[in-house]
Amino acid sequence: MRNLKIIVSYDGTRYGGWQRQINATTVQEMLEKALKALTGEDITLHGSGRTDSGVHALGQVLNFKTESSIPTERFALALNSKLPEDIRALQAEEMPVDFHSRFSAKSKAYLYQIDRGVIASPFYRRYAWHVSKPLNVEAMNRAKGAFLGEHDFAAFMATGSCVHQTSRKIHRFELSEHHQILKIEVEGNGFLYNMVRIMVGTLVEIGHEKIGAEDLPMIIDSKNRKLAGMTAPAKGLFLKEVHY
Amino acid sequence: MRNLKIIVSYDGTRYGGWQRQINATTVQEMLEKALKALTGEDITLHGSGRTDSGVHALGQVLNFKTESSIPTERFALALNSKLPEDIRALQAEEMPVDFHSRFSAKSKAYLYQIDRGVIASPFYRRYAWHVSKPLNVEAMNRAKGAFLGEHDFAAFMATGSCVHQTSRKIHRFELSEHHQILKIEVEGNGFLYNMVRIMVGTLVEIGHEKIGAEDLPMIIDSKNRKLAGMTAPAKGLFLKEVHY
Repeated sequence: MRNLKIIVSYDGTRYGGWQRQINATTVQEMLEKALKALTGEDITLHGSGRTDSGVHALGQVLNFKTESSIPTERFALALNSKLPEDIRALQAEEMPVDFHSRFSAKSKAYLYQIDRGVIASPFYRRYAWHVSKPLNVEAMNRAKGAFLGEHDFAAFMATGSCVHQTSRKIHRFELSEHHQILKIEVEGNGFLYNMVRIMVGTLVEIGHEKIGAEDLPMIIDSKNRKLAGMTAPAKGLFLKEVHY
Repeated sequence: MRNLKIIVSYDGTRYGGWQRQINATTVQEMLEKALKALTGEDITLHGSGRTDSGVHALGQVLNFKTESSIPTERFALALNSKLPEDIRALQAEEMPVDFHSRFSAKSKAYLYQIDRGVIASPFYRRYAWHVSKPLNVEAMNRAKGAFLGEHDFAAFMATGSCVHQTSRKIHRFELSEHHQILKIEVEGNGFLYNMVRIMVGTLVEIGHEKIGAEDLPMIIDSKNRKLAGMTAPAKGLFLKEVHY
């Protein structure tokens, strides 16, 4: 019995998110069906975390136990032959028996894309949030440092979440400009529900000068969701990497 | 009566190419319908050239005559309100009465994208040709110079084309690597039918060492379509810019 770790990339546009559910086709369901077709086994996948409907992944990590005899180095290609083109297994690796894609994760990195062109690019319509109103990127860059370090991020969690421990540590928060696409990369030891999207929404409101760059530490300290900005749309978000 | 020049970008995936036809929805048709909805006029558009089914545009140029009172600087935004998200007008400009998007063009630039990852990126599945077999990019770079300058490119024209003057001048032919995406940019004073796609297909066969890099001048001189390489798929091709 091998414990296989697989890195997958997917375009989340036509899926109801990662997690198996009744009323929508999900990425987990597509992968479990492909694994069944490949190995004949009823496999339950563990993902490093859920992604919401419309959210993409460059490097989601999953693991599962299998009795299959397919060699590890050929597993990704074999799995892709059973998957639609918008989900791709990138690589497979055999792990110790106690490796778990979620519980063993040390940190995660997300990418968020904003299309800041006056006119939205047709090629980013599914992969970026179109923000046509000019952004003060200098103010966004000035504010972003407040996210770094360990904080109680309760103000950056979707209301209704049932999480009691809301402290998380952010290691990296970077902005970069690529023509009309503004890329935001965030890395941390964990993320609350909708945390990256609320961070991005708040930063955009800072870019629109609706929230002052100097007010971000106070918003974090308030632990009050109402003081933070809007939740940025799902389609701009990519789970980029999971570190172990 | 104004003569308006409009630059448009489109994702060609779901269209039967640029030119109006009976059995497929085309980009020209979508734009003419949008112009009718916007101005009430029956407008016939002139494009800088056709793009085939599945080919994209970053900067297709079109022109048309209109009696509409919509200010030129607001025309692109107004037109976008009548267009699907995969076609965007980027800018409008009023031109002298004799400007014609096709006949006035001095040169055109195309971009071709190759996804050379062992596993295809889900995000480039509509926007790049997936070539998983390793490419000798050094050989491709060594060969590409043979395309520069004025040549009879009859060997790089789809068979069955009814063009008599097959000489064209290539000003620029560049390769660049961006992670697993190989970008090829070609600029010239004009292009024969499928010329860029056959140039790319030939270069890929050079990258696979099926054609020698040193044989490209001979292939051009032969004017024989059979000696050039395959026609690269439409989905990797973008009309990038038209120069006047």
